[in-house]
Amino acid sequence: MDLVKELLNGSRLALARAITAVESEYDEAIDIMKAIYPKTGRARILGITGAPGAGKSTLTDKLVKQYVKAGKKVGIVAVDPTSPFSGGAILGDRIRMNDLATNENVFIRSMGTRGSLGGLSKKSSDVVKLMDAFGMDLIIIETVGVGQSEVDIVKNADSTLVVLVPGLGDDIQAIKAGILEIGDVFAINKADRDGCDKLNVEIEMMLDLDSRKLAWRPPIKRTIASQDVGVEELVESLDDHFEYLEDSGELQKRRAERTRDEIIAMINEQIGRYIADKIVSSDSFAEQVEAVNRRESDPYSVVFNVTDKVLKA
Amino acid sequence: MDLVKELLNGSRLALARAITAVESEYDEAIDIMKAIYPKTGRARILGITGAPGAGKSTLTDKLVKQYVKAGKKVGIVAVDPTSPFSGGAILGDRIRMNDLATNENVFIRSMGTRGSLGGLSKKSSDVVKLMDAFGMDLIIIETVGVGQSEVDIVKNADSTLVVLVPGLGDDIQAIKAGILEIGDVFAINKADRDGCDKLNVEIEMMLDLDSRKLAWRPPIKRTIASQDVGVEELVESLDDHFEYLEDSGELQKRRAERTRDEIIAMINEQIGRYIADKIVSSDSFAEQVEAVNRRESDPYSVVFNVTDKVLKA
Repeated sequence: MDLVKELLNGSRLALARAITAVESEYDEAIDIMKAIYPKTGRARILGITGAPGAGKSTLTDKLVKQYVKAGKKVGIVAVDPTSPFSGGAILGDRIRMNDLATNENVFIRSMGTRGSLGGLSKKSSDVVKLMDAFGMDLIIIETVGVGQSEVDIVKNADSTLVVLVPGLGDDIQAIKAGILEIGDVFAINKADRDGCDKLNVEIEMMLDLDSRKLAWRPPIKRTIASQDVGVEELVESLDDHFEYLEDSGELQKRRAERTRDEIIAMINEQIGRYIADKIVSSDSFAEQVEAVNRRESDPYSVVFNVTDKVLKA
Repeated sequence: MDLVKELLNGSRLALARAITAVESEYDEAIDIMKAIYPKTGRARILGITGAPGAGKSTLTDKLVKQYVKAGKKVGIVAVDPTSPFSGGAILGDRIRMNDLATNENVFIRSMGTRGSLGGLSKKSSDVVKLMDAFGMDLIIIETVGVGQSEVDIVKNADSTLVVLVPGLGDDIQAIKAGILEIGDVFAINKADRDGCDKLNVEIEMMLDLDSRKLAWRPPIKRTIASQDVGVEELVESLDDHFEYLEDSGELQKRRAERTRDEIIAMINEQIGRYIADKIVSSDSFAEQVEAVNRRESDPYSVVFNVTDKVLKA
């Protein structure tokens, strides 16, 4: 395919078009992904997530500048799964990155939430692969929110940076519990705010409570991204973690698991489409649903009818 | 089944056990759900969601007291999908509801996020059905967070109350965009805070921008739940909306769509389990995944192999 050849030859336009094909589920998307797949697996993938208002975008901005200064080519996939209808709430943030967007060693793509969320995790993972095949050294997946969907998206990364901020309310802290357990490195951003020491202690306590007895103890770094404070030290910690992943064999293990999980998710998605096309649109299905609504049947019986019809033995 | 008979006869213990069976996916869960299904469809189902820190629990508490005072039996399903690992972050909130928990006309159940999220939406919907068959007049599904998963959970309701609060940051406001579009009634809680008028105007503006030209214009009510201010008026608005749903035929339509969506989700889940049991655990699958990791194959080819093997023509 010409598009794939151009992408592999370093055409940013081809990369942008390939991403659009994947995002919009064009017919050629799978052929593109199959063709680029052998060229993937070389980039380092960093997930960045954290509480709303933690300054993730600014911090990402500063991090990327450090990596670019060190001669790295960086791709950024900014995913916003919080807005199921309007999408694109992230665009305001991205505008701040304008000076990066014009850098030839940086490629930024924002992804809203058109289609299913499962789809969003899968699509962002495909976009990462496209950037990987394109030749990026580092690919950052940044998510805006704090829910399960963000966790799913960040699971496509090798390392995860969790960005927290001092002085948010208790409700926000409760939300953080879910993302604490996926952090390989923590940044307390806006570290000049009151409550920084308290938050640091809280994170250390949660890490102490972690029963998994990890070989890697996640470091906690303090940053003031808007003033470029602590960013170099954060980069060092991120590099340390990636080195640890490589040296321990953990990287290979994580990636193998990810491939497996990804394939399973794709199988389920593929079958879901089959069900939607062949079953859900049929008259017989509509009749069965109506019978359920009249309480003459029940959902569980319909489910068994359908799976019986669809699955081989 | 004895358990079902006791549940339908009003045994709270039987209801609790049936819920546990559904939550823990015991073998008898499907039989229970099939048996109670004909008795469902009578309760009114209210979803409550909103930004973290908006005071949803306190407001729910006060709302329930109003309904109980009016002679209603109320079930509460409190779902917390934000914490994928630890679960149960909601428990602190629930303690405040202790005086309700001992009321014989109220039944409260908290659900954490063990297992998949899709599972959580489905399970909370099943718990609603159990409470419905039990004879609750009103069932409230309250979610803690603000992501897509919360939206999915709240979609199991007839009406949705979105609780907002003045004076949160811009990032929080962006999150709200996603839940604004599912609100049938809005409450601005903690309405004595600065920024209440501003927030009210913002919501009105977003409603003006809604291109769907709804027959029902969502009202915006101001409350101070902790002081019981505005709660009666909020109940009136919620009643108005339910009346509108009934009179317009919208209720029947929404419920029919929900049944259909639910059946489709169950089919996909069922097939997902089949894949996990029959395919994923096989040696042949493991070998195919290894070949992908060696870049000798690609994920898309594995997916086609599997679907080919599993699906009838």
